Amino acid sequence: MSGVDIITFTSDFGWGGGYVAACEATVATIARGVRVLHVWHEVPAGDVSAGALTLQRVTPLFPPAVHLAVVDPGVGTVRRPLALVTARGDALVGPDNGLLLDAAEALGGIKSAWLLQPARVRQQAGLPDGKVSFTFHGRDLFAPAAALLATASDPSSLGSAVDPAGLVRLAPPFAEVSGEGAVAEVIEIDRFGNVGLALPFALLSPGEGDFSVEVVGEDLPDWNARVVKTYGELRAGDLGIFCDSWGQVALALNGASAAELLLIERGTRLRLARAPSSHGPRGTESGPDA
Amino acid sequence: MSGVDIITFTSDFGWGGGYVAACEATVATIARGVRVLHVWHEVPAGDVSAGALTLQRVTPLFPPAVHLAVVDPGVGTVRRPLALVTARGDALVGPDNGLLLDAAEALGGIKSAWLLQPARVRQQAGLPDGKVSFTFHGRDLFAPAAALLATASDPSSLGSAVDPAGLVRLAPPFAEVSGEGAVAEVIEIDRFGNVGLALPFALLSPGEGDFSVEVVGEDLPDWNARVVKTYGELRAGDLGIFCDSWGQVALALNGASAAELLLIERGTRLRLARAPSSHGPRGTESGPDA
Amino acid sequence: MSGVDIITFTSDFGWGGGYVAACEATVATIARGVRVLHVWHEVPAGDVSAGALTLQRVTPLFPPAVHLAVVDPGVGTVRRPLALVTARGDALVGPDNGLLLDAAEALGGIKSAWLLQPARVRQQAGLPDGKVSFTFHGRDLFAPAAALLATASDPSSLGSAVDPAGLVRLAPPFAEVSGEGAVAEVIEIDRFGNVGLALPFALLSPGEGDFSVEVVGEDLPDWNARVVKTYGELRAGDLGIFCDSWGQVALALNGASAAELLLIERGTRLRLARAPSSHGPRGTESGPDA
Repeated sequence: MSGVDIITFTSDFGWGGGYVAACEATVATIARGVRVLHVWHEVPAGDVSAGALTLQRVTPLFPPAVHLAVVDPGVGTVRRPLALVTARGDALVGPDNGLLLDAAEALGGIKSAWLLQPARVRQQAGLPDGKVSFTFHGRDLFAPAAALLATASDPSSLGSAVDPAGLVRLAPPFAEVSGEGAVAEVIEIDRFGNVGLALPFALLSPGEGDFSVEVVGEDLPDWNARVVKTYGELRAGDLGIFCDSWGQVALALNGASAAELLLIERGTRLRLARAPSSHGPRGTESGPDA
Repeated sequence: MSGVDIITFTSDFGWGGGYVAACEATVATIARGVRVLHVWHEVPAGDVSAGALTLQRVTPLFPPAVHLAVVDPGVGTVRRPLALVTARGDALVGPDNGLLLDAAEALGGIKSAWLLQPARVRQQAGLPDGKVSFTFHGRDLFAPAAALLATASDPSSLGSAVDPAGLVRLAPPFAEVSGEGAVAEVIEIDRFGNVGLALPFALLSPGEGDFSVEVVGEDLPDWNARVVKTYGELRAGDLGIFCDSWGQVALALNGASAAELLLIERGTRLRLARAPSSHGPRGTESGPDA
Repeated sequence: MSGVDIITFTSDFGWGGGYVAACEATVATIARGVRVLHVWHEVPAGDVSAGALTLQRVTPLFPPAVHLAVVDPGVGTVRRPLALVTARGDALVGPDNGLLLDAAEALGGIKSAWLLQPARVRQQAGLPDGKVSFTFHGRDLFAPAAALLATASDPSSLGSAVDPAGLVRLAPPFAEVSGEGAVAEVIEIDRFGNVGLALPFALLSPGEGDFSVEVVGEDLPDWNARVVKTYGELRAGDLGIFCDSWGQVALALNGASAAELLLIERGTRLRLARAPSSHGPRGTESGPDA
C-alpha cells in the first residue's frame, strides 16, 4: 500500500504507566514523521466488542490511514496477529479476535488479509528479533507493523496472506423488529448516560407516537418515552427516543442519565413497543407508567 | 483570516466511544496537515462556565490558532453556531452559549462574529449536505468549520455576520471586596484539591496576616488560613492562601485536598476576613478555630 | 545539543483545567513545529517514583528527544530546576527530586547536567522576565526550557553546569533474593490489576514450580501461584507469576485483578517462596492455601 502519514490508535491499555506511550515511541522510532492520533485508550479492559464498535464508527471519518487497535485478552496465546488492507486503501493492524472486521467492512471491505510474522516485522523495523514479550504485542509487534505499513511497506513483506473468510468474527448484537416495535441490545452508554441500541432508527419507523420501554428479563415497571429530535425538546425527567448521530435508536433524558434511570448497562436488552393510545404528540409523564 | 496550522480542541465529550476522534478525523479529512491539540475533553457534562474558564486561561498562551470548543447542552435547538475572529488573529468556533466570549476577550477582543450556516460549511468542506445530526454538531458542523478556518477560508464564506453585542453571555462569578476582606465564588478545584476563587490576588491586598475562611450559607466553624507563596511553606494540615498561577486567590493544604477539608465544590462562596489579631506571621493551628 | 522535533511530556497535572494544555501552548509559541507527545498526565499526585519508573521504561523507546517531566511537590521551594543531557543525545527537563535520574541512566547516562536559571530561559524564549509563578513552573520554566532545547539551544545558555553526583536520588525500591525465593516491593499495579515487582525475572530463576505468595507484614493466608508465560495459561481464579513486558516479575489473574485479590497497593512487599512440593507443573488451587 502507499504510505500514509496518520496512524490512529485504539486500545484498552489506559494512559497509566506509559503503555500507550511505549507504542507511540516505537512508531516514532520506525516512522518518525508519522502522526499518531489517539482514538480511545480506556476501552473497558478486554471488551473487544466495545472497541470494534468505536472503530467501525470512527475509522471511515479519517482519510486513508493505518488503524492500530489492541484490545487483546488473548495476547501471547494462539490468537493470530493480523494486518488487513481495505478496498479504500487503509490498513488495520491488531489481533484476530473480531476487533477489526466491522471497521474493515465500513471501510469498503477487506482487499487482502495478512498473518503477521513477528520475526519479519521486527527485522524490517530494525528491532532485535526474539524480543517479543508474551504480554505486550502492542509495543513489540503491532506498533512496528503499523509504522512499517504507514511508510509504504508492502504487507506481503510482513507476513503471509490468509483467507478473510477464516477470520474470527464477533456475534452481532441482538436486534429484532416486529409490528409493534423492537427488542434490541444496548451497545453504548455515553458519558451523558444516553443509551444507544443496536437498532437503526429507520427500522423502528417511529413516527410521532410514544413508546413503552421495558427492560427485558427484569421485573421492573415500563417507562413511557416520546420520539424527539433533540435533547432540548424534553422536559426535565422526560425520557426521549431519538435518532443518534450514528443513525441508531437511542434513549436520553434531558440533563440527566437515561442509563441510571433505567438501571441498565451495555448488553441489556430493551423492548420498545408502540404505545396503543399514541396517535400523535401528547403529554408525557416523568416516571414509570403506573 | 490567514491559515494557521493548529486547532485546539476543548469539549465535554469525554474520550469514550470515539466522539473526540470523530471530530479529529473530520479535521484530518478536510485539512490533513493541521494538528489538533487537545486541551480538555472531560469538562463536566454541560458545564459551559468550566469550559469558558479554561479557554480564557489557555488560549492566549497559544500562538494564533483556531480554537474549537464544544460544551453544548443546547445542541440541536435554536442556539446559534458561531465563529469569532479575534483582534489577535485567532478564530473561535463553537455554540453561542457564552463558552467562547471570555476567551475572545483574553485574545484581544472580537474583531468579527459570524453565524455559521451548516449548508455553506458542509459544501465548502466537500461533505454531503443535509447530513447534520441533531445531536453531534461537533463532528458535523463545528469541526468542519474549524478545519476550513485553519486552511485560510474566509469566515464570510461560512456564514453571515452578527453583532457581537447580541451574543449570549455567562453571568460572571460572584466576587465582592470590602475593607475586612472579600466574599468570592469558587471557580476551580484542581486535581490536588486546591481551591481557586473568582478574586484577583491583588484585590485582596493580603499583606502578611492571617485570614478566617468561612463557607457562606453553611453552619460550619471558620478556618484560619495563612498567606504563603508556596505549598512548601505550609505544615501538614495548615490551610494557606496564595496567589495561584493565574493571579487569583487560591486556598491549599500542603499534600492534601483543601476542597475536601472545607467540604466545598465549584460555585460555593467563601468569605475571607482578615483575622483581627493578625499583625504578621504567627503560628497557625490545623483545624477549625474553636 | 542538536535540535529534535519531539518533546515527550509526563506530569501529575491531570488533563483537567488546561494545565497540560498551558504547557503545550507555551511550547507551540516558542517552537511551533515541535510535536508534544503525551506520555501520562495522571501520575498519582506528587508521586515522584511512579513518574520516574514510567520515564525510565518509556524514554529509551523514543528516538532522541526532549523529555519534559513535572511531578513536583516541591514547586516554588529550594528544589532546583534541571536539564540533563544524555549520552544518547536526549535532554530531560524537570525538577531535581529524583524524577529524571533513572531515565537518564536508561538513556546511556548523564553527559552533562544544568541548573536552569529562570531569567535566562525566559529571556531566550522571548517571555517577560519576573513572571514566574510560585506554583506552575511547568508552564513558566520547564516547558520553555524544553522548547528551547528542542530547537537546538545550547543548555549552557539556559543555566550553569552542576555536578551530576550532587543530584537528588530516589531510594531504590526494596528487593532481596535468597535461596528459597525473594522479597520485593510492588512498583506497579496496571489497569488490569496486574502486580509488578521490583524484581528482574531472571533473578528469581523460577523454573517450572509453584511459589507461595505472602503479603509481608499482614496476617493473611498465603496464596499459591504458578509460573506461566501468558494470561491465557491460567484458569479463572488461578494466580500466575510471569515475566512482564519490562522483564520483571509480575503477578496476574486471568480476567480479574490480582491486586484486588491480594489486597495490595504500590509499595507493599511480597515474599515469594518456592513451594516445597513443587517439582514441575501441577494443578493449582484458586484461593488461599488452607
